[in-house]
Amino acid sequence: MTGSAERFTVTYRIFADSAADALRRAHDVALEQTVEVPGDVVPEGFIADEIVGQVGSATTAGRGAFGIAISYSPDSVGTELLQLLNVMFGNASILKGIKAIGFAPGATIAARFPGPRFGISGLRERTGRREGGLISPVIKPQGSSADRLADIAWRCVAGGADIIKDDHGLADQPMAPFHERTEKVAAAVARANAEFGTSALHFANITGRPDQLVERALFAKEAGAGGVLLMPGLLGFEIAHQLASDPDFDLPIMTHPSFTGPFVLSPDTGFSHAMMYGVLQRLAGSDISVFPNVGGRFGFSAEECFSIADACRDPDGHGAPMMPSPGGGMSVERAADMVTMYGDDVVYLIGGSLLRAGDRIGEAVTAMRNAVDAARAERDQG
Amino acid sequence: MTGSAERFTVTYRIFADSAADALRRAHDVALEQTVEVPGDVVPEGFIADEIVGQVGSATTAGRGAFGIAISYSPDSVGTELLQLLNVMFGNASILKGIKAIGFAPGATIAARFPGPRFGISGLRERTGRREGGLISPVIKPQGSSADRLADIAWRCVAGGADIIKDDHGLADQPMAPFHERTEKVAAAVARANAEFGTSALHFANITGRPDQLVERALFAKEAGAGGVLLMPGLLGFEIAHQLASDPDFDLPIMTHPSFTGPFVLSPDTGFSHAMMYGVLQRLAGSDISVFPNVGGRFGFSAEECFSIADACRDPDGHGAPMMPSPGGGMSVERAADMVTMYGDDVVYLIGGSLLRAGDRIGEAVTAMRNAVDAARAERDQG
Repeated sequence: MTGSAERFTVTYRIFADSAADALRRAHDVALEQTVEVPGDVVPEGFIADEIVGQVGSATTAGRGAFGIAISYSPDSVGTELLQLLNVMFGNASILKGIKAIGFAPGATIAARFPGPRFGISGLRERTGRREGGLISPVIKPQGSSADRLADIAWRCVAGGADIIKDDHGLADQPMAPFHERTEKVAAAVARANAEFGTSALHFANITGRPDQLVERALFAKEAGAGGVLLMPGLLGFEIAHQLASDPDFDLPIMTHPSFTGPFVLSPDTGFSHAMMYGVLQRLAGSDISVFPNVGGRFGFSAEECFSIADACRDPDGHGAPMMPSPGGGMSVERAADMVTMYGDDVVYLIGGSLLRAGDRIGEAVTAMRNAVDAARAERDQG
Repeated sequence: MTGSAERFTVTYRIFADSAADALRRAHDVALEQTVEVPGDVVPEGFIADEIVGQVGSATTAGRGAFGIAISYSPDSVGTELLQLLNVMFGNASILKGIKAIGFAPGATIAARFPGPRFGISGLRERTGRREGGLISPVIKPQGSSADRLADIAWRCVAGGADIIKDDHGLADQPMAPFHERTEKVAAAVARANAEFGTSALHFANITGRPDQLVERALFAKEAGAGGVLLMPGLLGFEIAHQLASDPDFDLPIMTHPSFTGPFVLSPDTGFSHAMMYGVLQRLAGSDISVFPNVGGRFGFSAEECFSIADACRDPDGHGAPMMPSPGGGMSVERAADMVTMYGDDVVYLIGGSLLRAGDRIGEAVTAMRNAVDAARAERDQG
């Protein structure tokens, strides 16, 4: 019961008819997210003074919406990321007309949740890609054997890939069980790295029962994987936080947006795109945040994608800046546009379209690498 | 690669201008949720024939919406619940205009995910409440000491509570750390049960790092808890599945809706209320599904609440029927309405308003019990 710990702040966009109405709702949220009792039964003293959320003033945030910051005590949280998210937006997620759009950890929470272990600079060191965007082909499809996936991985490294990412749909299915797949793919990447003098990293998708996750991450490391892929929407965010601070693990983490769409697709509930795919991933300790790129199969706008990339890399954000990783919508033809849009600190996920090249998939990776480098050169001369 | 395993089916409500358009979108979803590659690069044979989702016909499902069932291979899943959810709605969650509204497991998936271990009949046996709705006060607020929470729990059992539920905001904070709180509350409930000849169960909230969850659940059991509370929105659903089938654990599970609101609040993404708070919870092995009651602080309609209760208890649903647990909106005055609405197989969560009674909280619980029993008696005579 520190009382003196620095409070953390969540900014909400609250939809209401007037500022007074929005403030009334904010006071309800401040109770809902902490004591979850009516205001008149809150015990006096520590609970009323420290635990109940403290509501700031309302600012206009678009038509019929008001931005209101609520500060909370780190004692509401303890040391668990899931409880931080529970205070931030647990029951509030079920209220209509409230969206979480900003977060400031304060010193106490910042110390408890240090964020990305590697970040942009660490990823450049591990991959040896000192400048320019990273190229990350995805090995797939689900249903392929481990040998087939390993063969695709080898070819992609040969073509100049920086990161070989497991498809997020590769879990522990009978066609390519986790352990066999991870061993074979990591070994193929290691062989290719030795042959071509590269430093490509294989990111193994970690799924399973909660008590298997760390074990599997360490197995992947032992097998030679250079990182792991996690789906916080399905696994919870806590596993990223745990692995990012586990001294035995010490590999970069990439997070995938599966099962998180409804948090951003609704205009008046959930999180802003920047919060979900930038702030929260970075808070959890992810080094690379995957999100659907503009122009791909999903409907994110260029502005939404920008906001995510900004939140990932914001030098004033919490923890080390991380790499945004737009998935889909990338091609040789669009490389110049993408370089203009995302700059250099970015991981380009390249998915199913690469498979069109068949056994010449390595050449398709090389073509993408060359297109990105040419676009950079042109930009830097221009 | 069984090929002969019975496929499972997910029904989606797809928003489109025409049935043809909806079917085109459904074929995209069938690829997205499995191979995640364009149709023209799907390998022939097993992957094309079995792994890719198979699209049924479109039926009208409201204005501009079509119901379309897609069947998937159990080989896409393996044995992990998180991967079942990943196939069901992982990337589809990020597409606009698609909502998952139905699920049929088929024999293979049904065998892998047996559902609730206790269900309605098991809960009645454990609590000794052979008929009528169960009364479950919630111990809170966050910020209280473990001794204070234990005292509230004792008083609630004295008043006739069936289940003492931890507030979902009680995690592992310094004011009432998990181990101390769980030991003290469970001991208080046991003392009261011994004194009053009751069989009230304490449901301990389980949070923590993924590798701590089973350990904490077993600690709670050892301490005398009669069940656990889980938040699948924050922990992932897998922990419910794991505990429901762990022979060492063998206690009922209650699931809480924290952090899941955006899945149901948006009209055109996520899940139907019945899917999220009925079908999925039951599939995961929860015995009691908490959801916000009509008339409380959240905006669920009576129809939405009905649909949840129906999905929880549907005799033709998957696994043993479970108890719906409407939270909020219950009072002595509303007891007759609630009994009419929910019938007998229900757990009434009673939250912050009870605290108004102060140290006479037990009497408030008794008043609620009497109001429910009186409403039942009147109904059965009428």
